Amino acid sequence: MANSKYEYVKSFEVEDRLLPCTWVVVRIDGRSFHRFADVHGFEKPNDINALNLMNECAKAVMEDLTDIVFAYGVSDEYSFVIQKASNLYKRRSSKLVSVIVSLFAASYVFNWHTHFPDKKLQYPPAFDGRAVCYPDDSILRDYLSWRQVDCHINNQYNTCLWSLIKAGKSKDCANSELKGTRADFKNEMLFTQFGINYNELPQLFRKGSYIYRKKVQNSTANGTQISRKSSFVVTIDHGDIIGDTFWKEHPYILGAEE
Amino acid sequence: MANSKYEYVKSFEVEDRLLPCTWVVVRIDGRSFHRFADVHGFEKPNDINALNLMNECAKAVMEDLTDIVFAYGVSDEYSFVIQKASNLYKRRSSKLVSVIVSLFAASYVFNWHTHFPDKKLQYPPAFDGRAVCYPDDSILRDYLSWRQVDCHINNQYNTCLWSLIKAGKSKDCANSELKGTRADFKNEMLFTQFGINYNELPQLFRKGSYIYRKKVQNSTANGTQISRKSSFVVTIDHGDIIGDTFWKEHPYILGAEE
Amino acid sequence: MANSKYEYVKSFEVEDRLLPCTWVVVRIDGRSFHRFADVHGFEKPNDINALNLMNECAKAVMEDLTDIVFAYGVSDEYSFVIQKASNLYKRRSSKLVSVIVSLFAASYVFNWHTHFPDKKLQYPPAFDGRAVCYPDDSILRDYLSWRQVDCHINNQYNTCLWSLIKAGKSKDCANSELKGTRADFKNEMLFTQFGINYNELPQLFRKGSYIYRKKVQNSTANGTQISRKSSFVVTIDHGDIIGDTFWKEHPYILGAEE
Amino acid sequence: MANSKYEYVKSFEVEDRLLPCTWVVVRIDGRSFHRFADVHGFEKPNDINALNLMNECAKAVMEDLTDIVFAYGVSDEYSFVIQKASNLYKRRSSKLVSVIVSLFAASYVFNWHTHFPDKKLQYPPAFDGRAVCYPDDSILRDYLSWRQVDCHINNQYNTCLWSLIKAGKSKDCANSELKGTRADFKNEMLFTQFGINYNELPQLFRKGSYIYRKKVQNSTANGTQISRKSSFVVTIDHGDIIGDTFWKEHPYILGAEE
Repeated sequence: MANSKYEYVKSFEVEDRLLPCTWVVVRIDGRSFHRFADVHGFEKPNDINALNLMNECAKAVMEDLTDIVFAYGVSDEYSFVIQKASNLYKRRSSKLVSVIVSLFAASYVFNWHTHFPDKKLQYPPAFDGRAVCYPDDSILRDYLSWRQVDCHINNQYNTCLWSLIKAGKSKDCANSELKGTRADFKNEMLFTQFGINYNELPQLFRKGSYIYRKKVQNSTANGTQISRKSSFVVTIDHGDIIGDTFWKEHPYILGAEE
Repeated sequence: MANSKYEYVKSFEVEDRLLPCTWVVVRIDGRSFHRFADVHGFEKPNDINALNLMNECAKAVMEDLTDIVFAYGVSDEYSFVIQKASNLYKRRSSKLVSVIVSLFAASYVFNWHTHFPDKKLQYPPAFDGRAVCYPDDSILRDYLSWRQVDCHINNQYNTCLWSLIKAGKSKDCANSELKGTRADFKNEMLFTQFGINYNELPQLFRKGSYIYRKKVQNSTANGTQISRKSSFVVTIDHGDIIGDTFWKEHPYILGAEE
Repeated sequence: MANSKYEYVKSFEVEDRLLPCTWVVVRIDGRSFHRFADVHGFEKPNDINALNLMNECAKAVMEDLTDIVFAYGVSDEYSFVIQKASNLYKRRSSKLVSVIVSLFAASYVFNWHTHFPDKKLQYPPAFDGRAVCYPDDSILRDYLSWRQVDCHINNQYNTCLWSLIKAGKSKDCANSELKGTRADFKNEMLFTQFGINYNELPQLFRKGSYIYRKKVQNSTANGTQISRKSSFVVTIDHGDIIGDTFWKEHPYILGAEE
Repeated sequence: MANSKYEYVKSFEVEDRLLPCTWVVVRIDGRSFHRFADVHGFEKPNDINALNLMNECAKAVMEDLTDIVFAYGVSDEYSFVIQKASNLYKRRSSKLVSVIVSLFAASYVFNWHTHFPDKKLQYPPAFDGRAVCYPDDSILRDYLSWRQVDCHINNQYNTCLWSLIKAGKSKDCANSELKGTRADFKNEMLFTQFGINYNELPQLFRKGSYIYRKKVQNSTANGTQISRKSSFVVTIDHGDIIGDTFWKEHPYILGAEE
């Protein structure tokens, strides 16, 4: 075969299989999204359309790749949790990352007009991605908590920052005013100066978004017999995922492989 | 800082830095593009609009990431050559692959309507990607030759296959007829049965496409003085890249880092 | 500093940190030990002195590296289990493997004369080694079971093989006679032809050796008061490690890090 | 086969193949050799017997593994250069490192009494090791230069340090006196205070040791005919390997694979 003379170059490919029986998290992040947000006039500190667009793209990824059992998103980042037992793409890191990130980016452009019907997309965005293994459920939960705590800290900070800016402060000035302040000081500032009760802001902003396959019961009546089957519906929601409540109510999410 | 309790999860990220001073090739491939081509009614064996769309996306990637010195594309795949000395994203494999593949995929959707003004994109495509290191110029050249030989073999085969199918054969039947045949047999078949001189088909089909930064001389007349400067223009072309001719005419492409 | 011009070469070192919070098993294997055994006239199928020498070396490794919680050895191989939470050598794979394997090999030569007082060591042996991560206790137990099942299968085979050879068969002939036979056939052959009750052979041969830190109670009488403290003593033993019994009796071995 | 139930654990082994067509350097380093040198009363700053023992072990490694084309040693470290085209152990990093480091360590104990006939080895030493790829000859040469410059800097410093200590200074005091001083100051100090001409010290101390396969011509007279053949003899030498001279005189060392 004519090809064989050059085919040795394939031997330079390095295997990048991820450790079996571990949770794989693929996290993607918008590249230069500060600029992207500016160019497209995103609302500050949170643009609800931009967040909904992110959520729709993540949902599309989950609907396509059924080994993803959970996803968590905030701002311009999204984390996808692939189940421990998955052998998708033989667990090759580059395959998993590239398929997810490209599907997400393509969906972003594809769905843009639904969320921004009056705004033209100026240029195609890019995202970076990486895959990380977590050996057990509790560490995976810590990973997700890490992202949600981050969401809270950033959102509280940005809510103050943009309140100050909208009230006339320069960005530098607003930043100095906030530097080193604690959570209770910021909440107090929002309430006293701007009449904002932080805890009443939408969960979408304060907690980010998560997506999971919700178990639903389907009852079918057939004469006098009622048969019940359960199915799973990809569902977007917002709320706390640090505490145990959510996970106890949906034990099948992490337990799926057992 | 409240975050610290969970931040230990960052330690599970594994470094994936590629070996310094080696050529890095990021190759991306359409995921399930057989189906994608069917759904969108791509012309067989080659859809010129689809190929031009691929080329436009690859050009956008090269214009964005200036450390890419060369790209070669065929069918639904593209290879991007990052220069040896590059320290882009600290040579982290997942960063390089994810940014390139997501930018490419987003561009594909973004530019779709230019190349298919009358066709609606049915769903966003995905691509997989990988990064491979090649330690020296001659092995890198062998890599590119490998892809171009592959292009030739596949295109010749597909040209025969689709000629037989268009002439009424079933796909299975056409495949059996071609199985195990040699290049000269196929050329003969194309000429005798279908009046096609294979070597006169467009280079775009037979050789694929390459993109490079073409050095151009700019002369500026300023009174009696003429000053010359050279600049580089991202250029798409088609032709042989296996022989030495192209590389001798453009020595600056691979020599850029020396 | 004069050194700096060349120090860039350090950047070619690739990080090889093993995933945190996973059991690390470093397995070492004698290199070309068939020849080594022949040259040194090892008893077949098992040389008790050679096995004891292996055990003493493994014990020395465990006494030196206190993050190793368990070791299992058979023939010319030994597996060392490093506890999940260990950060020894920052979990760098090459460091862990190289220190263990070199300490083992050096100990082998160092302790040779104790076990073979009348035999001169003809040349220094080498061992290869590798590190593998196991994400949870049950997979780690399966790893150890894998090695012990292997020990059993090989030992039963070799006991038959060498009985036949000692009875005058050629090696090839003995191998053909055993090819494809089942466990019960082999046991029967040993009993009927050679009067060997396989299950009464020493555990050292049938089960291999394991080493662990045995918890022992130390009572000290001080007048009328008796104070008890526990300490851990590196202990070599032989027996089943596939079933739960051993692990239930010594729950602190795998639970040590919790 | 009874084994199969557990054999899945093999899938947790991760491939660690080194990039083809690159120089592989395996560097090993004595573990806690400060203590080892103290316990065994090594001469300071250089113990000629200990250095010769290191060299003999490295030579044994090279004689065993013929894909090693060069080795460079200083103090308690040694670097082994495996030729670019080598496929030894399929270029698996852990195999290469473990076999080299264990053979070296075992040889150290094996050959101890030849170099220290009157000193008992108190305990077996260990070495750590790592493998690094270098894509071309000039970077490999820079690596070797890096080690030889390091040898020079350390040796000059230690020669001063131990001269001061032997003259009655405390170690701390001697270190402070040397801190931040330049090469010419140190040479001057050695000459003025201690009558030592640094450049006349043995090359073994100042330049370290290198080992290569020296090409030698063998002439055989057969009647009136003289036939010449060349063979390669593993040879230890000392001298500069930073400049071009050595490499020009022995072009076959790095060129061996072409």
